[in-house]
Amino acid sequence: MTLSEKPMGPIPPGYVAHHGELVIAGVGARDLVASAGGTPLFVYDAGRIAGRVAALRAAMPSELGIHYAVKANPFAPLLAFMAGHVDGFDIASGGELALLTSVGISGARIGFAGPGKRDGEMVEAVKAGVTLHLESPRELDRAIEVGARLGIAPRLAIRVNPDFELAGAGMRMGGGARPFGIDADQVPDLVRRIVASGAEWRGFHVYAGSQSLDSEAIAAAQAATIDCVARLADAAGVAVPVCNLGGGFGIPYFHGQHPLDIDRIGAELAERLASLPASLAQTRFVLELGRWLVGEAGVYLTEILDRKISRGETFLVVDGGLHHQLAASGNFGSIIRRNYPCAVATRFAAPAEEVAHVVGCLCTPLDRLGDALALPHAEPGDLVALFCAGAYGASASPSEFLGHGPARQVLVGHEDEIPGLGA
Amino acid sequence: MTLSEKPMGPIPPGYVAHHGELVIAGVGARDLVASAGGTPLFVYDAGRIAGRVAALRAAMPSELGIHYAVKANPFAPLLAFMAGHVDGFDIASGGELALLTSVGISGARIGFAGPGKRDGEMVEAVKAGVTLHLESPRELDRAIEVGARLGIAPRLAIRVNPDFELAGAGMRMGGGARPFGIDADQVPDLVRRIVASGAEWRGFHVYAGSQSLDSEAIAAAQAATIDCVARLADAAGVAVPVCNLGGGFGIPYFHGQHPLDIDRIGAELAERLASLPASLAQTRFVLELGRWLVGEAGVYLTEILDRKISRGETFLVVDGGLHHQLAASGNFGSIIRRNYPCAVATRFAAPAEEVAHVVGCLCTPLDRLGDALALPHAEPGDLVALFCAGAYGASASPSEFLGHGPARQVLVGHEDEIPGLGA
Repeated sequence: MTLSEKPMGPIPPGYVAHHGELVIAGVGARDLVASAGGTPLFVYDAGRIAGRVAALRAAMPSELGIHYAVKANPFAPLLAFMAGHVDGFDIASGGELALLTSVGISGARIGFAGPGKRDGEMVEAVKAGVTLHLESPRELDRAIEVGARLGIAPRLAIRVNPDFELAGAGMRMGGGARPFGIDADQVPDLVRRIVASGAEWRGFHVYAGSQSLDSEAIAAAQAATIDCVARLADAAGVAVPVCNLGGGFGIPYFHGQHPLDIDRIGAELAERLASLPASLAQTRFVLELGRWLVGEAGVYLTEILDRKISRGETFLVVDGGLHHQLAASGNFGSIIRRNYPCAVATRFAAPAEEVAHVVGCLCTPLDRLGDALALPHAEPGDLVALFCAGAYGASASPSEFLGHGPARQVLVGHEDEIPGLGA
Repeated sequence: MTLSEKPMGPIPPGYVAHHGELVIAGVGARDLVASAGGTPLFVYDAGRIAGRVAALRAAMPSELGIHYAVKANPFAPLLAFMAGHVDGFDIASGGELALLTSVGISGARIGFAGPGKRDGEMVEAVKAGVTLHLESPRELDRAIEVGARLGIAPRLAIRVNPDFELAGAGMRMGGGARPFGIDADQVPDLVRRIVASGAEWRGFHVYAGSQSLDSEAIAAAQAATIDCVARLADAAGVAVPVCNLGGGFGIPYFHGQHPLDIDRIGAELAERLASLPASLAQTRFVLELGRWLVGEAGVYLTEILDRKISRGETFLVVDGGLHHQLAASGNFGSIIRRNYPCAVATRFAAPAEEVAHVVGCLCTPLDRLGDALALPHAEPGDLVALFCAGAYGASASPSEFLGHGPARQVLVGHEDEIPGLGA
């Protein structure tokens, strides 16, 4: 029986071979593994991240703020690097706040959204000067109470559950009945209550969806967000200091997907920002992005432990697996399993010679990282690279499952001197 | 808009209310939370686990060994408790070996299966006298080499990829091309090599699938396993010290599912064991179970943080979520999301009064623990119980995702004196 190849997603542009080996931030895969102390290893390329931020700033209106959504990748060195590149951070828990604090990021740059904030988290956030994005009327009561108890005017914004959603998004977070945000019709009253309470009114947050590759849909959602926020501001009779437009910028993971056209999004947004209604004339608009900034900058390197044939099919068994890359295994909220981009890092320049499955080391049939991939012939000791591993990888996987433990992580290419390839 | 109720799975029998509150191992939910220090909390009832082992032993032929599959729940106190109740342990990593060692369980009682064993793991296992369940010809070479290096005859068994699979299983692990085990036709040669190498030949391991609720299918797979192993033993010309029949015993998670008929499985297995071929006359047969032993003994308790209405639908936002109960959220290898059994623990005797969604605290639409459940009216401060949480819960979920951290875990009901309800 000959196994038919199944397609994989596109390897992000710019990953090249040197002496046949995948190079990340100027360093070969084997050297990266050696200096990190072994596999499995997530490598994050700081230069690529900086490049994404720069490309985004070039495409977007200059007055737009760029926030980083910590949930995408909370690796502390990456957060510290981000501090010099983005304008703010969005968090979803007290744990993420503690991480940002640990790398010296000030609460004034942070917004905190999430439908289930605990009292202790709200206290720490208010103390640190974080803006709370309120998700319910009850949360407003609790925030006012926390501020009163601490003697600090809390910084409060409202997360709006809009009456539209981001078309074609991987995950919809607005439109319909949702646990996120406050239905638009309840918002004006709450804004007036915030102002009356003496809290610091910070504005609106609207997050319509995520992982969209449709630039037209994103532009339309941004336009709808601005309209919605203008209506709410008028209804409440307030100015809007900040409007977080959400994110939703996707990256191509699968065969047939293409990168987002950010120039088009930027051009349409510039037009909108040039013709704002009076109520939004002083508003600072921000984008909140995670995956789009860091996803393609990450590569997961895992070593082949075994090569085995079962009933004519070839299995490359690696020392990593779904405990580090759950989404790549197709088991995290996916209906149909599709292949992430994947390569043999130690034979990166070699042509495909066979069709093989790449399976993780976990003793469960769920642990498949590549299904029927066309690859060069690889042997135990070779390294497999799984791309698009910079977001929702290490932190979004069950690292304790079956006791193999977490992966190593390293941020490379951020020192003044990058260990290079020589002349 | 009125939300229609969606069904949930059956609450395992024997969970009762006292003064209106769910009682686990004789202790009320609020007292359990208070002594554990807070929510979210996994409570495992040792008495229930002991009861399952006893029920299994009563149903199965008396000569059958019972092994516990550590992957189902590796909580250390639970492993220590298990040591007094089961005959052996099956592990899938060096991490699980270290856990068993830490609670004083001897390597002689342990079998180690898994398609991607690292060298270091094999060394530790051979040193500890663990039986390695070989998954490939190459792994045999490596095991012999490790044994030679250490001057220890390794204990070696072969995991067979059988030419059948467990019909109706939640996960199929045998039949077809698989990363697990060695295709049956390659096995006799390898057995002879093991014996010739001077290693200690320990027998066969056949795992055809898991989470089956079809007792007839399990009995048929066990019969086929015994036939397969007899053929392999004859072909190799060896006796079989141990035959691990695998597991596959499921528990009902969803509406319409019913408990497995273990009496029927036991009766059929007893018949088979009473008429074994000569080559298996001295064989010790063992079952390897995880989920069936511990799944229904676990309850996940999480506190309601918010109650909100969005477009007419009620959302109960809890302080737990998919970071502890990924499978219950429907995002771990499921095609269709269905509701696990769920209740308001602090109003356990109250009738259903409304239809509500139970959502976790994570800022992602994936984090839904109960969809349109019929529940008593519950308020912030009430505890929600998610049942069937004893297996593949805490350790099989992305506990770092969004920074809320892991859940507490506690094993109750295993001391001589159980803190009770009073007279």
